[in-house]
Amino acid sequence: MSIIRVCFLSTLFSLLAASSLCMEQTLGMRIEGSHIVMKTSCSSFFFNSQVNNAQGWKVIPEECEDLVARYMNNGQYAVDMEGVAVAVLDYLKDIIPGEDGKDVVIFDIDETALSNLPYYRKHRYGAEVFDHPLFSKWVEEGVAPAIPAMLSLYKVLQAENWGIVFMTGRTESQRNITSQNLLDVGYSGWTTLLLRSPAEAHTSAVEYKTRKRLQLQHEGYRIWTSLGDQWSDLAGAAVGNRTFKLPNPMYHIP
Amino acid sequence: MSIIRVCFLSTLFSLLAASSLCMEQTLGMRIEGSHIVMKTSCSSFFFNSQVNNAQGWKVIPEECEDLVARYMNNGQYAVDMEGVAVAVLDYLKDIIPGEDGKDVVIFDIDETALSNLPYYRKHRYGAEVFDHPLFSKWVEEGVAPAIPAMLSLYKVLQAENWGIVFMTGRTESQRNITSQNLLDVGYSGWTTLLLRSPAEAHTSAVEYKTRKRLQLQHEGYRIWTSLGDQWSDLAGAAVGNRTFKLPNPMYHIP
Repeated sequence: MSIIRVCFLSTLFSLLAASSLCMEQTLGMRIEGSHIVMKTSCSSFFFNSQVNNAQGWKVIPEECEDLVARYMNNGQYAVDMEGVAVAVLDYLKDIIPGEDGKDVVIFDIDETALSNLPYYRKHRYGAEVFDHPLFSKWVEEGVAPAIPAMLSLYKVLQAENWGIVFMTGRTESQRNITSQNLLDVGYSGWTTLLLRSPAEAHTSAVEYKTRKRLQLQHEGYRIWTSLGDQWSDLAGAAVGNRTFKLPNPMYHIP
Repeated sequence: MSIIRVCFLSTLFSLLAASSLCMEQTLGMRIEGSHIVMKTSCSSFFFNSQVNNAQGWKVIPEECEDLVARYMNNGQYAVDMEGVAVAVLDYLKDIIPGEDGKDVVIFDIDETALSNLPYYRKHRYGAEVFDHPLFSKWVEEGVAPAIPAMLSLYKVLQAENWGIVFMTGRTESQRNITSQNLLDVGYSGWTTLLLRSPAEAHTSAVEYKTRKRLQLQHEGYRIWTSLGDQWSDLAGAAVGNRTFKLPNPMYHIP
């Protein structure tokens, strides 16, 4: 059996760290049936979750809680979001939206337009199993803050005559509170806000969002790009010529 | 005009950094024609390049050289590669390859099976404009080391009866030196090694690789996954049910 050397670095992304603790050990490989199963430490979780190599995870690795907390709170998350905004503007800078309001950018809501970080701060940054009723209760308070870089991007795009479509996995029953929350933190004048109907309650994110995008196209909208913190926001038909993945190391929606 | 706050953190991914230097400034936005153009600092380069938000860059940002150097050299790059290997094995663990050798995994070569880090160490980690003749000279020395996690993965997969296809943007003229280099560092017994023919010299990476994959399918191979450091290794038809993006903050191939 192959043995892979693992370095437990003193920081998760210790690019500038003065020292790192490096040791030999297996990757916790074991045989299950006829297969070799390997487990790694927290240290590569960020890269592998964000590029979509790690899929199907329901909680962040236990030992990552502190690292994810630091990423979310120390400014790096905000800076990475600003980098996304810059990349979006760079992509759109040579495209002039038509006068008809049909050239649109799709924004996801949770961890894209709005932040649920206040909720996740109380729930171990994703190290606790997701509690749907409790999370819905938080959503229905309607107090999620804006993500500053995305709010700035939204305003720049609107000033340039882009239409904005909000498309969210939140349900129709949360339409009013979601609109009010968006308005309260500074978003306004969107083209449309699309939420899950009761009939779509059990549809996968990719299927639900693809169907909504195809409907938009059918109504004459030209979708140039989709922005979301989940790869499932960016997969399927009619996402646009380019898509933009926003950082979110706290949860994964398949 | 919107002003976005930028924090210049004392480390690029300073999740565990004790302190960060945070200051207010614009993102260097300026008007070009009727468009707003924004520039960001180095700090979000890693995230945005690796998730494919930042495209079309020809060199890394000048100010990122030191950070990229640290990432490549301090162990984090190796750890992230190990995380990729774990994710690949996790995906393939429930699939049993057939006896016919037609179930295959596609490995890219540069920055996937082999590392050009010794070359990039001498060329500012991608901060210098790519010099094709000079890089070819390095390739033709045939001394690129293996990427340890990928070599381990390769051996585990072979032991489980997976076929391995090497598919590279290197040219047919580099076939012998490439094979020898792979053998010298421990790869052996691959199913096939596919390189660019002279007729494919000016084909885009996505088009060239897609054509090769479709040819493989035509020959009866079943492609389960593609591994590469470039998103262009993972786009187009017949990449497999899942793909795996390996870290590479040094260069970008569209």
